[in-house]
Amino acid sequence: MQNFIHLESDYNNGAHPEVLHHLMETNALRSKTYGFDEWSEAAREKIRQATNCPEARVEFLVGGTQTNATLIDSILQTGEGVLAVETAHIAVHESGAVESSGHKVITLPSHDGKMLATDLSDYLERFFADETYPHMVQPGMVYITMPTELGSVYSAREIEAIESVCRQYDLPLFVDGARLGYGLMSDACDFDLPWLARHCHAFYIGGTKVGALCGEAVVFPKGDAPRNFFTHIKRHGALLAKSRLAGVQFDALFTDNLYFRISQHAIKMAQRLREAFVGAGFKMFNDSPTNQQFVIIPNRLLPVLQQHIGFECWQPLENDATMCRFVTSWATEVREMDCLADFLKRLP
Amino acid sequence: MQNFIHLESDYNNGAHPEVLHHLMETNALRSKTYGFDEWSEAAREKIRQATNCPEARVEFLVGGTQTNATLIDSILQTGEGVLAVETAHIAVHESGAVESSGHKVITLPSHDGKMLATDLSDYLERFFADETYPHMVQPGMVYITMPTELGSVYSAREIEAIESVCRQYDLPLFVDGARLGYGLMSDACDFDLPWLARHCHAFYIGGTKVGALCGEAVVFPKGDAPRNFFTHIKRHGALLAKSRLAGVQFDALFTDNLYFRISQHAIKMAQRLREAFVGAGFKMFNDSPTNQQFVIIPNRLLPVLQQHIGFECWQPLENDATMCRFVTSWATEVREMDCLADFLKRLP
Amino acid sequence: MQNFIHLESDYNNGAHPEVLHHLMETNALRSKTYGFDEWSEAAREKIRQATNCPEARVEFLVGGTQTNATLIDSILQTGEGVLAVETAHIAVHESGAVESSGHKVITLPSHDGKMLATDLSDYLERFFADETYPHMVQPGMVYITMPTELGSVYSAREIEAIESVCRQYDLPLFVDGARLGYGLMSDACDFDLPWLARHCHAFYIGGTKVGALCGEAVVFPKGDAPRNFFTHIKRHGALLAKSRLAGVQFDALFTDNLYFRISQHAIKMAQRLREAFVGAGFKMFNDSPTNQQFVIIPNRLLPVLQQHIGFECWQPLENDATMCRFVTSWATEVREMDCLADFLKRLP
Amino acid sequence: MQNFIHLESDYNNGAHPEVLHHLMETNALRSKTYGFDEWSEAAREKIRQATNCPEARVEFLVGGTQTNATLIDSILQTGEGVLAVETAHIAVHESGAVESSGHKVITLPSHDGKMLATDLSDYLERFFADETYPHMVQPGMVYITMPTELGSVYSAREIEAIESVCRQYDLPLFVDGARLGYGLMSDACDFDLPWLARHCHAFYIGGTKVGALCGEAVVFPKGDAPRNFFTHIKRHGALLAKSRLAGVQFDALFTDNLYFRISQHAIKMAQRLREAFVGAGFKMFNDSPTNQQFVIIPNRLLPVLQQHIGFECWQPLENDATMCRFVTSWATEVREMDCLADFLKRLP
Repeated sequence: MQNFIHLESDYNNGAHPEVLHHLMETNALRSKTYGFDEWSEAAREKIRQATNCPEARVEFLVGGTQTNATLIDSILQTGEGVLAVETAHIAVHESGAVESSGHKVITLPSHDGKMLATDLSDYLERFFADETYPHMVQPGMVYITMPTELGSVYSAREIEAIESVCRQYDLPLFVDGARLGYGLMSDACDFDLPWLARHCHAFYIGGTKVGALCGEAVVFPKGDAPRNFFTHIKRHGALLAKSRLAGVQFDALFTDNLYFRISQHAIKMAQRLREAFVGAGFKMFNDSPTNQQFVIIPNRLLPVLQQHIGFECWQPLENDATMCRFVTSWATEVREMDCLADFLKRLP
Repeated sequence: MQNFIHLESDYNNGAHPEVLHHLMETNALRSKTYGFDEWSEAAREKIRQATNCPEARVEFLVGGTQTNATLIDSILQTGEGVLAVETAHIAVHESGAVESSGHKVITLPSHDGKMLATDLSDYLERFFADETYPHMVQPGMVYITMPTELGSVYSAREIEAIESVCRQYDLPLFVDGARLGYGLMSDACDFDLPWLARHCHAFYIGGTKVGALCGEAVVFPKGDAPRNFFTHIKRHGALLAKSRLAGVQFDALFTDNLYFRISQHAIKMAQRLREAFVGAGFKMFNDSPTNQQFVIIPNRLLPVLQQHIGFECWQPLENDATMCRFVTSWATEVREMDCLADFLKRLP
Repeated sequence: MQNFIHLESDYNNGAHPEVLHHLMETNALRSKTYGFDEWSEAAREKIRQATNCPEARVEFLVGGTQTNATLIDSILQTGEGVLAVETAHIAVHESGAVESSGHKVITLPSHDGKMLATDLSDYLERFFADETYPHMVQPGMVYITMPTELGSVYSAREIEAIESVCRQYDLPLFVDGARLGYGLMSDACDFDLPWLARHCHAFYIGGTKVGALCGEAVVFPKGDAPRNFFTHIKRHGALLAKSRLAGVQFDALFTDNLYFRISQHAIKMAQRLREAFVGAGFKMFNDSPTNQQFVIIPNRLLPVLQQHIGFECWQPLENDATMCRFVTSWATEVREMDCLADFLKRLP
Repeated sequence: MQNFIHLESDYNNGAHPEVLHHLMETNALRSKTYGFDEWSEAAREKIRQATNCPEARVEFLVGGTQTNATLIDSILQTGEGVLAVETAHIAVHESGAVESSGHKVITLPSHDGKMLATDLSDYLERFFADETYPHMVQPGMVYITMPTELGSVYSAREIEAIESVCRQYDLPLFVDGARLGYGLMSDACDFDLPWLARHCHAFYIGGTKVGALCGEAVVFPKGDAPRNFFTHIKRHGALLAKSRLAGVQFDALFTDNLYFRISQHAIKMAQRLREAFVGAGFKMFNDSPTNQQFVIIPNRLLPVLQQHIGFECWQPLENDATMCRFVTSWATEVREMDCLADFLKRLP
């Protein structure tokens, strides 16, 4: 193997060439600002079509943590909490952005990264059965990630079950789709984008990790965004003055199915990555069907792997092993996966 | 006049061609993320040189409101307030982002957009002379804008006077430089970037309005950023996963003086714009030496102007007139200013 | 004059004897807690009668700043601001409690402590006429003080005019009644408690300054308190575990018109105080008809006055004089006012 | 058994007679306000003596949730989190007051209500070993409750072990002493108040649950309260205008050891309560040595018990039983405990 293979993340690269090309070809044009530019408008319309939601409110924010914090803060009433699994990005890796706007993240058990409707239902039943509940943080919405931080995907039945509990308790369901494309294009996924849009209150279509330089498309499928939502975005520092930056990129991503093509490519690369590891005798930590693959690496092999491959040590395990994350993206090449398979086979 | 002339803002355009080119030529490379990419590191070093601050801490955030909110929230102690003039961007046009993190904006009079050291000094003297001051919001820092929201620039003496009051009361001085280049390149400015860096606690070098697609470079000249500053950035949703987006752009902006060349060009265009208006008999609202020009337009002329020129109606005035803002940028062309002069002269 | 006369404030004393007596006679009884005790329930009912609002939601909080912060935070939507005059208690003397929960205090001019409906109307008209208003803090409610921080009282017409603007813009009107009794019992007041209750969304009846040891009774006349209002109170640290402390006191205050008797007594004492000063040749700062009297004291007299009388220097004036505040309460005695008149007459 | 026995809580009663008497005998006197009254000053001095901390900063707040929220918010830097066990009052029963000021409660396992130093140490070691820790909430202080929500007490060794970890990571240790007296007077406690004061950064001495009508005494043993601590108290709505209310009560509580006599009495009553239950064949849920006793009650007996005794159903258990809480206080009488024993023995 000659070259270093970069599998650290799906944001260690630039923009997908088609996205970059659209930035170039539109660069000389003057535009409106703050979300009113023509490309943002075009991208909105394309997303309304792709989600089959003609009434959808679509706004473009910059990054994932920002999008979660803005959405949660604007959907919740003052002081309410958001229910999420304990491995949720908002519960672990967002530096307390949700708490910064005054809201508690109420955690439920994680099942391979997923929330179980029964856990949610049990929590809420016990909560309201406890006479002291007015002394506790009132649950105000539910947050799930699709695909999850562990690469797993929800089935339609699982989401329907969660949605049903949400409806019973009048809790909006918000889906963090930082890697949504990789979830939807996964073989394990039994629903599509319009289906998802019908089954939640709000979600976002992650751009940063799916071929853009930055940008997340927030969607309220029924158009019922919180009052003064524009002001909420501005107040959270999430409003791009040159909104064309996000608009042009999403315009490209939703032209000729680019968003889904990128996702599908990364999934295929992830399958080859998985085959390479399993073929070389490694065990997978879990059964991720998306572009994040978690491999159990014996600690003695870490140095040699780190010399040739970029990846992240995720969590120490027993028996001198480490759970490591390898991630594919639009930029991962077939050639690289071949090299990887070769390299792994030759390991001592 | 054939074409519509866009003078609505300095962010109605794409990236300066040299910035765009650098994005293109680096796009295929893999990089570290979250601020550790090679271009961010290179840009940091170039900014340290341009500011003559080898110890400076430099971080790249996305937009102005976000940068103000993050900086102010991380510099202030819990519950403290920030002193600013009543026309300050943070006091008016940031949707309460500062208050959202629990801090009051304490306003002082605005003098053509500027804070007077004597007003600051008077406020603080009266504040601490009042026995009830512990019942009031404690002033924790001072915020000024350079150039101001009205296009004016501080003189070195004015900033030194403010700095001196700040030192007396142990208040950090923060300079919002969303349009910093246009201030520094103005004929009216009697200091340079290294001088400014020596005379404040923190400032930022605005990119969005000076040739980038997005990005603001925060500088702590002495390197004494607040503890856990990285976490503060993340918590405010201001951390770019693909930090190369900002890094590459600032790397370009601080190569071959591009940042200053862009600024100087816009200033020249603004001078021609001003001459065009004054030459056609218009009165200027104030004496702005930067790229924002404020013209008093008789209301009867608004429709015909709006047909041919993009600009903003800023404030209604007496005598059936309106204060209007015209803004130049890297994208404003000499040819456009010639057309403008022609067009204005021919107005009835 | 033998004894020092305490006129520093209306909270430099203990409880009114009838309030204290009720605390004593109920002390040995066991009770429910957190607002469900029998005296809180009784006081609620008496307040519903006194306000002629059988549907009113009534809750007892501890102090004024706390009550303002809790009410404003629970009534406003996230990020909205509260409109108040620049001399308002929440704008000046509450250490930024409102900002601490993320809300801006948007200030209007003060007219002897009062808000003018025309100022309010002008602000709102200009606000929504400005195209950039979504970039600004959205006004979410209106706050006025009755009587004001300067002792003045609103007329029914003035409140109706404000209420009318509020209705036009769908803004709840909240009346800070920290000294409500003194306002209502003033000769200058042309409305009563039931009238006030009909003309605002929420208000509170101050206890701390009107004979209680602590306690403020929050009233939503139509019963439409914010959702989860109990939880809001708890979250703001404003829920008394031994809620009987407030309940018993308000039960006493609203028995046999004690609240109004206390207020009326203090008003009478304030009139004598005023006569004493005016009779001795002093000038009043304003025409306060309530229990706070503001007198212009030549600075040369301050030392001798301070030797015999407790009062507060409020604000330095021109011509070597100071605006000083003298406050009466339930504890102020006729005898003391006689002494004061005597003392003032004999001043050189 | 004739009379209903009230064991619902230690705040279902009025003030201890000696506390009430002091309120009565001081009621007619005028005083300074906002914490500067003579009784607050006297109580401060008595607490300095009782804690053997001549330099201590002592402030009186109103209630427990308020005190926790104010202390934690003023000690933490912006955005930092507080470490506590998952059963901690701040994590469960304070309606998210900590999150409301922007801080996450980071939970560790609870061991009969207590935090283990090893859990704390493990958490911190793993936290800083994880390279992504700047993306997480930075731990800023440690919160423990003494006695705990489950009635258990820490040993001196356990607190020393926690303190040692705190020192290693430079984290202030804060002890919630809402029921501190009951912990210190417990037979199971092997340290006293001065010892505790030497082993933590801050703590509070609960008054509400130990004989006062309201009031918690915050102590910074070394005097190093956060900067502008007075303003923090005001900002949190925790400053009593008539501060004498708290001052007089704590003056009484710390005269002739009243605070400790009350606590000791309640402990003795709790022991008799425990003997009564165990003697009647009931099983205790845990081995609480303080004034809160947790008994496992078969569900079939709940109705008859509820007819004669006031208590709280805390948590459903397996086998048709419920964990119930019975609480003693200064007001619990020997006679009542005799009645209880009688009553329990006669149960079918």
